[in-house]
Amino acid sequence: MRKSDDFSEWYNEVVEQNELTDKRYPIKGMNVWPYYGWKTWLLIGSIVRREFDLRGHQEVYFPLLIPEDQFQKEKEHIKGFDAQVFWVTRAGDNELDIPLLLRPTSETAMYPIFSVWIRSHADLPLRIYQIVNTFRYETKQTRAFIRVREIQFIEGHTCHASYEEAESQIREDLEIMKNIAEELCLPYKVIRRTEWDKFPGALYTYGVDTMLPDGRALQIASIHQYRTNFSIPYNIYFEEEDGSRKPVHQTTYGMSERMLGAVVAIHGDDTGLIIPPSVSPVQVLVVPVPVKGEAERITGEARKIYDAVSSLGFRTRFDDRDIRPGNKYYYWERRGVPLRLEIGKREIDEGFVTAVRRDSRAKIRIDITDLQKGIGDILHDIASSLLRRAEESASRMEFDADRPEGIREGYNRMSWCGREECGKNIEERSGGSLLGTPVGESGKKGKCVICGEETDGIAIVARTM
Amino acid sequence: MRKSDDFSEWYNEVVEQNELTDKRYPIKGMNVWPYYGWKTWLLIGSIVRREFDLRGHQEVYFPLLIPEDQFQKEKEHIKGFDAQVFWVTRAGDNELDIPLLLRPTSETAMYPIFSVWIRSHADLPLRIYQIVNTFRYETKQTRAFIRVREIQFIEGHTCHASYEEAESQIREDLEIMKNIAEELCLPYKVIRRTEWDKFPGALYTYGVDTMLPDGRALQIASIHQYRTNFSIPYNIYFEEEDGSRKPVHQTTYGMSERMLGAVVAIHGDDTGLIIPPSVSPVQVLVVPVPVKGEAERITGEARKIYDAVSSLGFRTRFDDRDIRPGNKYYYWERRGVPLRLEIGKREIDEGFVTAVRRDSRAKIRIDITDLQKGIGDILHDIASSLLRRAEESASRMEFDADRPEGIREGYNRMSWCGREECGKNIEERSGGSLLGTPVGESGKKGKCVICGEETDGIAIVARTM
Repeated sequence: MRKSDDFSEWYNEVVEQNELTDKRYPIKGMNVWPYYGWKTWLLIGSIVRREFDLRGHQEVYFPLLIPEDQFQKEKEHIKGFDAQVFWVTRAGDNELDIPLLLRPTSETAMYPIFSVWIRSHADLPLRIYQIVNTFRYETKQTRAFIRVREIQFIEGHTCHASYEEAESQIREDLEIMKNIAEELCLPYKVIRRTEWDKFPGALYTYGVDTMLPDGRALQIASIHQYRTNFSIPYNIYFEEEDGSRKPVHQTTYGMSERMLGAVVAIHGDDTGLIIPPSVSPVQVLVVPVPVKGEAERITGEARKIYDAVSSLGFRTRFDDRDIRPGNKYYYWERRGVPLRLEIGKREIDEGFVTAVRRDSRAKIRIDITDLQKGIGDILHDIASSLLRRAEESASRMEFDADRPEGIREGYNRMSWCGREECGKNIEERSGGSLLGTPVGESGKKGKCVICGEETDGIAIVARTM
Repeated sequence: MRKSDDFSEWYNEVVEQNELTDKRYPIKGMNVWPYYGWKTWLLIGSIVRREFDLRGHQEVYFPLLIPEDQFQKEKEHIKGFDAQVFWVTRAGDNELDIPLLLRPTSETAMYPIFSVWIRSHADLPLRIYQIVNTFRYETKQTRAFIRVREIQFIEGHTCHASYEEAESQIREDLEIMKNIAEELCLPYKVIRRTEWDKFPGALYTYGVDTMLPDGRALQIASIHQYRTNFSIPYNIYFEEEDGSRKPVHQTTYGMSERMLGAVVAIHGDDTGLIIPPSVSPVQVLVVPVPVKGEAERITGEARKIYDAVSSLGFRTRFDDRDIRPGNKYYYWERRGVPLRLEIGKREIDEGFVTAVRRDSRAKIRIDITDLQKGIGDILHDIASSLLRRAEESASRMEFDADRPEGIREGYNRMSWCGREECGKNIEERSGGSLLGTPVGESGKKGKCVICGEETDGIAIVARTM
């Protein structure tokens, strides 16, 4: 299946055939993570962990199950999630007095506890995160990593003494996003969601969107300013230095396995996956290329090179299966391993390795005495190229539009006065979603494509996954 | 609360007051893991991961929810777990056609998939593990880490071509157990469970028990030989080289957050926790001890030492809070940090640090030029001492008994013919549990304490947590 012929089919094939996911589990939208996929997700998780940890956010774990009465304290929130919740109603032979829900997100699990953790200004800021399974009863069509019912989720929650401090946290979140996206070689846009599309209970929501090859936008992360919308109903107050009692200001930051979905969708090609070096379970593949009569010597020397590359700290795999080298190349190319080292007679005799890049197929000679720098540089260059290529293709999918009809595949930028009525009208007439207004882009003056009013407001409209 | 006065109360206090757990979550047996506790558990998990990974076991993730019909294929298994299962019966506004249960363990989630993964002998052995949340509706009194309803669990599952290969896997599991227990400084006994106490569906079960200070045994891990008891009902067959079709032989290996409970219970003292260096979130604490007029210089120099120790790869914390050094010492002693470095005027002027061990309180002078080896050696010695101390106290709780009545606090070893009738009689008359027969100990001839028959069978009897 060629990616350009049918992206959707290509995606489904490439994730299933290369051990990223197994969809044969008998519950719709709940898939098995085989080793290769799970390892990739763990590596993505460890990048997020590193970014949070070095800024002093602390990893915690809150229970999966949330009592119904605790869930219902913030009215907008419950309205937003009610239809999507899985309910535990029975345990052993007992009907439960209070049904328990599987977390779709953990605000309502955490906030009653925050209200006992936080007493005074000295307890602030509180900055925690967790990496957990969450659950949403999706009724739309499911798709591996992109729309599932058990979601691998990373959620950051913070509490601050003031709105300004919460805003500064959101700026830090954007910096974290920048670093993570760079490691995943993903371009993205930060878009302030419309009022009718923000997170249930939030003051405002920043969606982090990336553009898929079929011209649909995919939200890979979101950042929310709650102000005191949760802290008041959940009674999270702190005592100021002057003795006054105030509700904390809160933010959250959510990221999910969709980041892996985006990596697959954006970098892959007709051959299969291309996984960025930072999160590839195998960064370097070593393949011996034996010739008659010297098979043993060559395999032995190749194994020494494998050992050397491993011990330099690269995630390395040695493929000595009894099949032809060409089959090995193809097998690992499909799996997206960024760099392959071929080691044959000439390489051994002359003291070099032939490195083959997954992205460009370019062959590069690396001297055996230069493995660390040689491999490191190429992996680094592969990452840069993946990002550049992805950015170029995203930028080819950005358009200015002067009316909502006939939007193109990609981001469609149009003038919008900001009123809900006009916004809904844009969605209706375009058939796309109004993602919101881009953050950090200054709008040029124009006329709202619906009402014609002069405005510097901008709407980004796209079809979504 | 002194540990020796009331172990049970001491345990509850020490886990709650030192940020290992927070029991204020409103569901019984489902506790919050604050940062310090969660980090300790993550470190235990990373030791297990290392042991599995280096032997080629692959980490995966299977869905949490299991359809009722899939769960019920192995009759003994369902009987064993039925009363302990949480059921999801509703999603959004819909009653589910087939109720879904929260995994109490993942045999029934995994095995239908194994039956499609495994086709031929070339797919064997299959060796995977996962680190996940599991759920059991405990009706007994709950206790942090030891008896909870949401359990952090590590489960290894293997499939083999023959019974002998499965047996050899179990020997490898015991080797893994040895390495993990050594890192946690925990003595343990491997005990083959009785027929009526083995894992539901297993051919046999090895329990891995450790002895708590109050004389009760705690199972911290278990290893199961399933033979073909699951592979036949779940249709996990493989084709042999000769073309014949055979059911695979299976084993599992389970470990849980009880390992953390044992660490707390066994190593702690009247002051608080003592966490073994390998899993302590903070291995080395650095405290400046300022004197008047030189506070700034001393704190600055201490911070340099903190930086140096950190960069050597030790998990290090610098405590520069504006409270007296003595309060810091006490705070971190209670939290179980194995080693503290005190840095005052004399230390800086003479170029050394004063290291204070948490376990023995011994003070050791380490030259500033010798930090790596100096600290490394002490941490190593702390681990050895913790293990030795724990072994000594466990061995003081082993007794030979010639009748079931009046068993003592600890392991009570008695002759047993092996018959269920006599075994149940032992439990009734002793008031303890018959843990089973010790693995790898050769019994000496004796007479069954119930029926008087000559036997070299041994029963270990103890009260359990």
